[in-house]
Amino acid sequence: MDPLGSTTWVIAEGYIPGDSTGSGRAFESHETACVLNAGDQDAHVEVTLYFTDQEPVGPYRFTVPARRTVHQRFNDLTDPEPVPRDTDYASVLVSDVPVVVQHTRLDSRKAELALLSTVAWSTS
Amino acid sequence: MDPLGSTTWVIAEGYIPGDSTGSGRAFESHETACVLNAGDQDAHVEVTLYFTDQEPVGPYRFTVPARRTVHQRFNDLTDPEPVPRDTDYASVLVSDVPVVVQHTRLDSRKAELALLSTVAWSTS
Amino acid sequence: MDPLGSTTWVIAEGYIPGDSTGSGRAFESHETACVLNAGDQDAHVEVTLYFTDQEPVGPYRFTVPARRTVHQRFNDLTDPEPVPRDTDYASVLVSDVPVVVQHTRLDSRKAELALLSTVAWSTS
Amino acid sequence: MDPLGSTTWVIAEGYIPGDSTGSGRAFESHETACVLNAGDQDAHVEVTLYFTDQEPVGPYRFTVPARRTVHQRFNDLTDPEPVPRDTDYASVLVSDVPVVVQHTRLDSRKAELALLSTVAWSTS
Repeated sequence: MDPLGSTTWVIAEGYIPGDSTGSGRAFESHETACVLNAGDQDAHVEVTLYFTDQEPVGPYRFTVPARRTVHQRFNDLTDPEPVPRDTDYASVLVSDVPVVVQHTRLDSRKAELALLSTVAWSTS
Repeated sequence: MDPLGSTTWVIAEGYIPGDSTGSGRAFESHETACVLNAGDQDAHVEVTLYFTDQEPVGPYRFTVPARRTVHQRFNDLTDPEPVPRDTDYASVLVSDVPVVVQHTRLDSRKAELALLSTVAWSTS
Repeated sequence: MDPLGSTTWVIAEGYIPGDSTGSGRAFESHETACVLNAGDQDAHVEVTLYFTDQEPVGPYRFTVPARRTVHQRFNDLTDPEPVPRDTDYASVLVSDVPVVVQHTRLDSRKAELALLSTVAWSTS
Repeated sequence: MDPLGSTTWVIAEGYIPGDSTGSGRAFESHETACVLNAGDQDAHVEVTLYFTDQEPVGPYRFTVPARRTVHQRFNDLTDPEPVPRDTDYASVLVSDVPVVVQHTRLDSRKAELALLSTVAWSTS
């Protein structure tokens, strides 16, 4: 299949709750960028984080191999520095080949889950 | 009405929780591709699933008759093989006539429901 | 302000839960098409509903006056016939002037609320 | 990075619940416009609110500095007048430089949270 998607994606909403009530990784509060690379070349993705009152941080880097999806938790980004909790941020993802990005948050601060998801905003 | 929509749709987020707390099909944790075929020809849809660490699986096939909607649960896709639970995946839907695709997940792992929905990403 | 938006909108996901646990209209399970008419002419909107196993029903009609928003609950559409509960459907909205449509569902079948929302798919 | 985004954004869904059960700002029911300005010039944003049965109100004004994100709560907009609670509204955001807007609502009327989010509808 030909490459699907765009090379630049924006997620204007970002917030990792500092608390979780669940047990185990599946129930931990998290923000995720779900990235699909349906093409035949590996996608090298660079993420820049924007904040309210400090300069942007990045690039964070991860690879989505050809014909694979990576559901990258922002919680797990640590280089150049961990993503702060309980802090508003936004992110821009730039890939060297077209990909599709969908944004999801699971919030488990309360005993019951809350979920949100939206396709990110794209341009090429 | 003329055909509405696109022929290629991407849902980068996919995850079927392995557990449900509800009773009955309506409350079972599920992921759904809601497909509308507003045109006058049947839509033959092929779904390919992408994973984190294995080759894509598919095509899964289903038909959306003319002037009908099908809310296809990924839970119910079994040929060529069932969709694994508790596993990250992404999906590409290709139709032979234009359709519109919206993605919804109901999560009933906890006693209360969590819902997400977004229009899928499209190209033609 | 010039008219903003498109004249044709599709919401592929539709489902009105038959049950509610809340008291009062605000907590009743509902599906809503939030329509903004930012222009200077009234918008006459026609809604057609599509189902899984029967012919489409419609048009339902409502008006969004100039410079107004109408958050139209599908629950309240009764002419030519009420929207069935616990039934999958999809909808196409056609307006005579540009509008913007966002889709929201509040599910109160359980004691706690679940919410979803997405901008509808548009074409002109 | 070059400016990303569009200059006009529409959020057709708006509703600030009048009640909250949580304690503290993080758990207060709120509606937010998450705005990313990835460019090198400050973005001056004007918001106009549309209602069901009265003339539009605005402009509300806020600034998103260069290379910053502002997660603007509608709850906090007070000039020219506070945003009414328990009232349907819609909003149009116009910026003098390109930005990206994502809409999020946290509903804490019940003990557990409900979340929704979607990228706003854009035009230039």
